[in-house]
Amino acid sequence: MSKQAMIHALKNNTFLQSVSMSCLDDMCKTAQSLHVHKGHVFFLREDPAEAFYVIVRGWVKLFRESLDGNQAILDVLTDGHSFGIPALFHENTFPYSSEAVEDVIAIRIPLHALKKSMEGNIQTAHSLMQYMAKEHNNKEKELEHRTLQNASQRIGCFLLKLLHNTHDDGPQDILLPYDKALVSSRLGMKPETFSRALAKLKAETDIQVKGSTITVSSVQKLAAYCCTACSHTFPCKP
Amino acid sequence: MSKQAMIHALKNNTFLQSVSMSCLDDMCKTAQSLHVHKGHVFFLREDPAEAFYVIVRGWVKLFRESLDGNQAILDVLTDGHSFGIPALFHENTFPYSSEAVEDVIAIRIPLHALKKSMEGNIQTAHSLMQYMAKEHNNKEKELEHRTLQNASQRIGCFLLKLLHNTHDDGPQDILLPYDKALVSSRLGMKPETFSRALAKLKAETDIQVKGSTITVSSVQKLAAYCCTACSHTFPCKP
Repeated sequence: MSKQAMIHALKNNTFLQSVSMSCLDDMCKTAQSLHVHKGHVFFLREDPAEAFYVIVRGWVKLFRESLDGNQAILDVLTDGHSFGIPALFHENTFPYSSEAVEDVIAIRIPLHALKKSMEGNIQTAHSLMQYMAKEHNNKEKELEHRTLQNASQRIGCFLLKLLHNTHDDGPQDILLPYDKALVSSRLGMKPETFSRALAKLKAETDIQVKGSTITVSSVQKLAAYCCTACSHTFPCKP
Repeated sequence: MSKQAMIHALKNNTFLQSVSMSCLDDMCKTAQSLHVHKGHVFFLREDPAEAFYVIVRGWVKLFRESLDGNQAILDVLTDGHSFGIPALFHENTFPYSSEAVEDVIAIRIPLHALKKSMEGNIQTAHSLMQYMAKEHNNKEKELEHRTLQNASQRIGCFLLKLLHNTHDDGPQDILLPYDKALVSSRLGMKPETFSRALAKLKAETDIQVKGSTITVSSVQKLAAYCCTACSHTFPCKP
């Protein structure tokens, strides 16, 4: 990947796009692009943290495993998102594991390059703060949903975020970005709960499911069903 | 409250204790101490944010309300904790509401004082980043627990965090810090789920419940029951 393509990809990351050009230039000096296959493990939880990653293409899951061997999916991320940065605040070990859920192109950036930039440059420090605050807000919203929304509403909420057009009320097709088993794990549901909840959502909001394609017949109806059990009105602010 | 007492109270806050003395001095110039009664609302979600608060004594709940009127408790905080800071990253409005769950003494600090300190002083920016990262980590852990632990294990985990002594395996009494209804809301459970789960926890781990006092007969037994469904080993790092 050329340096220009790398800068372009980094500028597509919500955190790095507010970092100064000279800091990005510095980071690029030691950054590498990676092409990895489905199942590739970038790092495991508690590994010594040497680098963070920006996804150029594909999906990556972040997860933790309990002592008795079950997996909690913390996030499933795609193009423009980064992972591994919280290690900076976690004694330089990763607080979660990460794995490619399909073939992935990513950029690997040594954490010391980010640390150096953060320590010397207040703009980088502020961008990083904004990033941490946004991540925190997302998790807080998810906890709210786990408390107030039922399983069908949480699936509906997941679908609403995949809509390309939130204003048009006509039928819209949504393609699930990854397989249903991972969607149910991402939403913290057992597969049987997910199936029952999806069936209920179909009955309540007239969505149709054909393989990985979901047809939403009325966005307003779906939003009315899901968003009354949330503190935010539809459409959510990004 | 004297300036010295105020500085002492602020130094008890995990975030502010790593802020420089001159910044703390500046903050104290416009800070005020408050004594409020149970039920006092410090601010509501989406209110314009003018100040953040450090709790000197008492308990404060942070919450959001869904459009259909249900409440999600995001946190219940006590001595040394702060609330309201995330408004800095939320278009200067509060992302949650806050209410005293008993009589509370707190210090109110204008957010512009913190903002000024953060913009001019990289040490404050770093302390704030550490604070946001820690908050984010706590929420991520809570989401993990909601996914992997059953309701009884989550109650047990809550109790384990209240233990004064995690090394001694002999019987220990724990006093619930606030009423059971709020404990169940804090854990995201309906009261009937909480009652059933507590009964199951009693049967599985031999804890005894008398009003607000819980007697843990064996810390190891309680930890073995709860912590196998978590990615962290007992005792948790702070």
